[in-house]
Amino acid sequence: MFRTLYWEDGAVVMLDQRKLPEVETYNNYKSYEEVAQAITALVVRGAPAIGVAAAMGVALGLNNLEEGADVDAEFSKICDRIERARPTAVNLFWAVERMRRLFEVNKGKSLAEIKKIFVSEAVRMHDEDIEACKALGRFGADLMPDEGVVLTHCNAGALATAGYGTALGVIRAAVEAGKKIHVYSDETRPFNQGARLTTWELQKDGIDVTHICDSMAGYFMKKGTIKAVVVGADRIAANGDTANKIGTYSVAVLAKENNIPFYVAAPLSTVDFDCPDGSHIPIEERSGDECAYICGARLTPEGIPSAYPAFDVTPARYIAAIITDRGIAEPAFTKNLAGLQ
Amino acid sequence: MFRTLYWEDGAVVMLDQRKLPEVETYNNYKSYEEVAQAITALVVRGAPAIGVAAAMGVALGLNNLEEGADVDAEFSKICDRIERARPTAVNLFWAVERMRRLFEVNKGKSLAEIKKIFVSEAVRMHDEDIEACKALGRFGADLMPDEGVVLTHCNAGALATAGYGTALGVIRAAVEAGKKIHVYSDETRPFNQGARLTTWELQKDGIDVTHICDSMAGYFMKKGTIKAVVVGADRIAANGDTANKIGTYSVAVLAKENNIPFYVAAPLSTVDFDCPDGSHIPIEERSGDECAYICGARLTPEGIPSAYPAFDVTPARYIAAIITDRGIAEPAFTKNLAGLQ
Repeated sequence: MFRTLYWEDGAVVMLDQRKLPEVETYNNYKSYEEVAQAITALVVRGAPAIGVAAAMGVALGLNNLEEGADVDAEFSKICDRIERARPTAVNLFWAVERMRRLFEVNKGKSLAEIKKIFVSEAVRMHDEDIEACKALGRFGADLMPDEGVVLTHCNAGALATAGYGTALGVIRAAVEAGKKIHVYSDETRPFNQGARLTTWELQKDGIDVTHICDSMAGYFMKKGTIKAVVVGADRIAANGDTANKIGTYSVAVLAKENNIPFYVAAPLSTVDFDCPDGSHIPIEERSGDECAYICGARLTPEGIPSAYPAFDVTPARYIAAIITDRGIAEPAFTKNLAGLQ
Repeated sequence: MFRTLYWEDGAVVMLDQRKLPEVETYNNYKSYEEVAQAITALVVRGAPAIGVAAAMGVALGLNNLEEGADVDAEFSKICDRIERARPTAVNLFWAVERMRRLFEVNKGKSLAEIKKIFVSEAVRMHDEDIEACKALGRFGADLMPDEGVVLTHCNAGALATAGYGTALGVIRAAVEAGKKIHVYSDETRPFNQGARLTTWELQKDGIDVTHICDSMAGYFMKKGTIKAVVVGADRIAANGDTANKIGTYSVAVLAKENNIPFYVAAPLSTVDFDCPDGSHIPIEERSGDECAYICGARLTPEGIPSAYPAFDVTPARYIAAIITDRGIAEPAFTKNLAGLQ
């Protein structure tokens, strides 16, 4: 199998997801600045994996400090830099905030002690993330059909987390429980996470998967092929409104129109209880060139602009249940998500 | 400007749409078999253009017959072959049927006379198609907003017709009437007609156009950016159910959910009055490899299947109006489409 990201010998190692499925190559990052750049460049992506990468980036920044450094000032600088890597996934801010609290608690300790504490904490957050995915997978497996096609959008798998996955964690747990699930994987333009990553990791696990273009999901829902939808999340507001990869909102509307349950799977760390509803979630706008070019070739004529909002918000009313590591929240989400805390 | 397809010196000339926008190259087809293959291979596409290509293919087949040939038998063979080129666009069958009727009327004439009659008829159908697009454009222009963004899916433009276009004909006519329209063009995976063709032909006309991925249409509808949607059609059932490029159904559902008018623009020859509703429209299934590969590179891992239904059916209840060359039909379509005949 593969590893999405891990700590090794004073460096953060990441599977370069831009190069999948052609090559499985691992990059070594030796500074927090490199980690921040790798997050921005989508070497690693997926909210929980970004959270772990952020924690490891902070630990790496501290670990590289020399005796006599102004640790307080450097720590602030490191955290601020990591937080600028991407705006939408709340796990990034959650992870940095957890590191900030840890720093407060350990004020006065020696730099050597701090380094050890922070590296341990980052590794712990990595392992906790896998456990959270397995827990939410167990909760969510019951919601999956005993057999049939389940649609997912983007990649909310082992590659989007420290391992096992959120949406794909639910599918893995359902398959482990004996359910006969065939996954339809939305291509997920323009970064093609569904075509490249979801297919790749499910193929490695021997789970049946078919690639469809994003525009085909509605067709297969109306035809009755798709029995359920499960996706991940980048940020869930307190009321259940969910930011996830661009196109998720469309899938949710189509699922509602066709009476198909639409599930969101995410660790509770993806819920932003300070955010009352989806209108407060910042949506990352990326360069249109990332849409205009594919596999190095330009799709559109020179001079034609492309838009690239990287996420959208699915209002809570389209969501049948939010599957977390603490249990399943059904509507009304404001009350039921809070109850899982 | 460019020409989508035309008759010249005993051959059918087609702009090779597979190679746009990089190169504008014209292919000469000298046999009906080559024309049928070009239709299947998407050198020419778009229901009205396919209809004209089919008519020219039949004329070409007759034009190539030598004195003494069994004209009746050959004519049947030619028509049957052309009809197998693609299954969904009704204009292909409409055009061949028109040729069959013309053949009946001219039985007993010399082969030389028949050749002349059929070549003239094919050229007439080409010119009539442009006139039909201009007529429906004038009708539809009134439905467009005075200013703002109009979304289209696939390419229902000059490239999908003999010229001027259906959905883009409506937009062209609106712009000619002084309306300030900015087009959002759905990429339209997997053949990328929106990214490659709609952008290309609107750029040539100086009409503002932005490329978006198919998964982004819902986002821009919910945000309030998109004021109206206009698409073409491959076959319209008598009750208004409309087959069009895969993804159209999704756009229509999202438009309804966001209270945005969704219009279909097509010549009346696209209405199949013998087809009571969309369940009777055959949906072409193309090779999944056409989805798995893009610009020559493979998107998905080896061994992963892709599905490729090339069309979907939008139920009439999502359609605000059908814009034809004979006027605009609003619901109830069964009555109002019949009234335009």
